[in-house]
Amino acid sequence: MESFSVELGPNSHPVHVGHDLLTGIGEFALAAGLPAGRCALITDSNVGRLYSKTVLNSLESSGFRAQLIEVPPGEPSKSLAALQQIYERLAEAELDRGGAIFALGGGVVGDLAGFAAATYLRGLPLVQVPTSMVAQVDSALGGKTAVNLRTAKNLIGAFYQPRLIVVDVGTLTSLPEREFREGLAEVIKYGAIMDAEFIGWLEQEMPMILAREANRLGQMVERSLRHKASVVSRDEREGGLRKILNFGHTLGHALEASTAYGNYCHGEAVAIGMAAAARLSLRHSGLSADEATRLEHLLAAAGLAIELPAGWLTGKFIRALRLDKKRRGDEVEFVLLDRLGHALTRKLKFEEIIGEWAET
Amino acid sequence: MESFSVELGPNSHPVHVGHDLLTGIGEFALAAGLPAGRCALITDSNVGRLYSKTVLNSLESSGFRAQLIEVPPGEPSKSLAALQQIYERLAEAELDRGGAIFALGGGVVGDLAGFAAATYLRGLPLVQVPTSMVAQVDSALGGKTAVNLRTAKNLIGAFYQPRLIVVDVGTLTSLPEREFREGLAEVIKYGAIMDAEFIGWLEQEMPMILAREANRLGQMVERSLRHKASVVSRDEREGGLRKILNFGHTLGHALEASTAYGNYCHGEAVAIGMAAAARLSLRHSGLSADEATRLEHLLAAAGLAIELPAGWLTGKFIRALRLDKKRRGDEVEFVLLDRLGHALTRKLKFEEIIGEWAET
Repeated sequence: MESFSVELGPNSHPVHVGHDLLTGIGEFALAAGLPAGRCALITDSNVGRLYSKTVLNSLESSGFRAQLIEVPPGEPSKSLAALQQIYERLAEAELDRGGAIFALGGGVVGDLAGFAAATYLRGLPLVQVPTSMVAQVDSALGGKTAVNLRTAKNLIGAFYQPRLIVVDVGTLTSLPEREFREGLAEVIKYGAIMDAEFIGWLEQEMPMILAREANRLGQMVERSLRHKASVVSRDEREGGLRKILNFGHTLGHALEASTAYGNYCHGEAVAIGMAAAARLSLRHSGLSADEATRLEHLLAAAGLAIELPAGWLTGKFIRALRLDKKRRGDEVEFVLLDRLGHALTRKLKFEEIIGEWAET
Repeated sequence: MESFSVELGPNSHPVHVGHDLLTGIGEFALAAGLPAGRCALITDSNVGRLYSKTVLNSLESSGFRAQLIEVPPGEPSKSLAALQQIYERLAEAELDRGGAIFALGGGVVGDLAGFAAATYLRGLPLVQVPTSMVAQVDSALGGKTAVNLRTAKNLIGAFYQPRLIVVDVGTLTSLPEREFREGLAEVIKYGAIMDAEFIGWLEQEMPMILAREANRLGQMVERSLRHKASVVSRDEREGGLRKILNFGHTLGHALEASTAYGNYCHGEAVAIGMAAAARLSLRHSGLSADEATRLEHLLAAAGLAIELPAGWLTGKFIRALRLDKKRRGDEVEFVLLDRLGHALTRKLKFEEIIGEWAET
C-alpha cells in the first residue's frame, strides 16, 4: 500500500492506494479521525452487489453502524431527484453531523454522494472509496462534487473535500472492458498535460495494462493520483492551474450532453475531446503534428475512439458548449498543449472552436 | 448610511445599512468588485411588486443585465422543487461564473437564492438585499444558506458568504405587522445572549420601534447586525461561539416543523423557544427568575407569544427535534443563559428538554 497526503491546509487528507484495501475501510476511517457510530454507505446496485458486504463488515468491526443506500447504476442517478431520495434516507437514518458518508462506486456515486455530504446539515464528513478507473485516477480526488441538470452535466455542485480516500485497485479487475478503457483516457490526460515521461511509460506498458496486470495498475493509478493531488494542492478552487485538468473536457462534456449521456461514457467523450483539443493546439499553441499524432496513437492503443462522430455539430451541442462552467461571455477558457507533457489555457471564441471542423 | 466589514479573511465583505439604499444597489455592487454584465435578481412576488423595479433600474444603470426570477412568497418556496426551477432559469439565462445572484427579499428568498448561488456552477457571487426584519437583522449575514426537507427545516444547505449585503431599513415600513413583530424576536435574542444594555434600550424604545420610527429602526438593525458580524467573524463555521446564535431556535425549529411551517412564522416560534430556553436556564445554568421574567416581558411587549401551544408535544415535534443539526446521538447542544446578556451551551438529553414541561 502507498499512502500520501493531499495538502490542502485545513482540508488536507490522506490517500491510500493498494490491493485488498476494502477490508480495512473501517480502520482507515478511525485512523483519519472519523468518529465511529451512525454513518451511511452510498453505492450503486452493481457495485453494491460486489463490494458492499465487505465494506459493511469492515465498518461494523470498527464500530460504525452504516445505513446502506443504493442508487441505480448510471448517469441518470446524478440528478436532483436521486439527491432528494438520498437526503430523505439520511433524515430517516437520523444521521447527525458526526455521521460520515462513505461513497463506494464510480464517478456517479462519488459526485452524487459527495454533493449530498457537502449539503446535508451543511456538511458531513466524506470518505471516497472509488471503484471505477475514472473515479480512482480522477474524480474521487479534488473535492469536486456535482449533479446534472437536464441541460448540462455537473451544473449543480460544490467544492467539498473528502476526509479520506481509499483506492483498492483490485476493483479494477471487475470492471467491464468499456469502463476500464474509458478510465485510461483520464490517465493519458495526465501524461499529455504534465508528464511526457508517463506518456512513454504508457506507450510501452499498454498491453500489460490492458491485461490488467496488478502491479502496472497500481503504479498507473498511484502516479495519476499524485499528479492530480499536486495540481489540486496548488489550486483547490480552480482559480488557475487546476484548469489544465479540463484538457479534453470542454468538447467532451458537450458531446456527452448533446448525446444525452447515452452514446458516450465520460472517458470516451474526453478521449475524443483530447484528440480535438490536440488538433486545436496545432493552430493555437504550437503543438507539433508529430506529438499530436503520438497522443492520438496512444488513445487508439487504449481502445478509445478519437474522431468526432458524424453529425456532431447540432444545436444541442452548441447549447451544451455554452453551458460550460469555464465560459465567460462568448469565449471559453480552453485547455491546449504547447508540447506533449505541458498544457496552457487560452480564451477561444466558440466560432474558433467549432470552425476548426466546420471548415473541413 | 453606516458601513462596516464582516471580517472573514478571504470571505470578508461590506455591509451597508441605511435609508433609500435600494436605488444604489448597482453602484454598491460595482464598488464591491462584482463584474457588470449578466446577473440574476431572485425575489418573491410580494417583494418583487414593491421593489424589483427600483433594483432593476439601479442594476441596469450600472451595467448589469439582470434576469428577474420570482418565486411564490412563503416557506414552501424553500424546497428542492423551487431550487430546481431556479437552476433551470439560471441555465436558460446562460449565467456564467461571473454572473452574480442578487437575493431581494426575506429569509426564504435569502436562504433559497443563497443556496442556489452556492451550488450553481459550484458557486456564483452573491449579494444579499434583505427586506424583512428577520433577514435584515439575522439571516442575510453569516453565510448560512438552506432549503427544507419535508421532515425538517434547513436540513439541506451550505455555508456560503455573500460578497455584499445592502440593508435598506425603509423596506421595514412596508412589512405586515406580523412579519414586523416576528423580526423583533431575533433582535431581542442579541440582547439576551450578548448585550444586556441592548435589552434595556429595547425595553425603553419598544413603543417607538413598534411605531416604526425611522432612526430607531436604523439603530436597532445596525446594532443587531454588528453583533451578528462579531460572532460570525470569530466562528464562521459554527464550531463553537456561533452556536449561541441558536438561542431559542432548537425548540423554535421543532415547533415550526411540527406545525408544518404554517401556524408559526420563524420569529414567533423562536420567541416561544427563547422563553422556553429561559425556563430551562433557571434549572440548568443559574439564570435568575427575575431575569427570565424580564426577557418574557420584553417579548410580550413586542407582541410575541411566549407560551408553548396546547398539544405541542406530538410525535412530529419529537421527530423534528431529533433532526436538529446540533444533535449528537441522544443529546442536543442547547443554548442557555447564565445571565441576561450572556449565553452558553450545554448538552441536554431530549428527556431533560421535554421533561421540563411534561412534568407540569
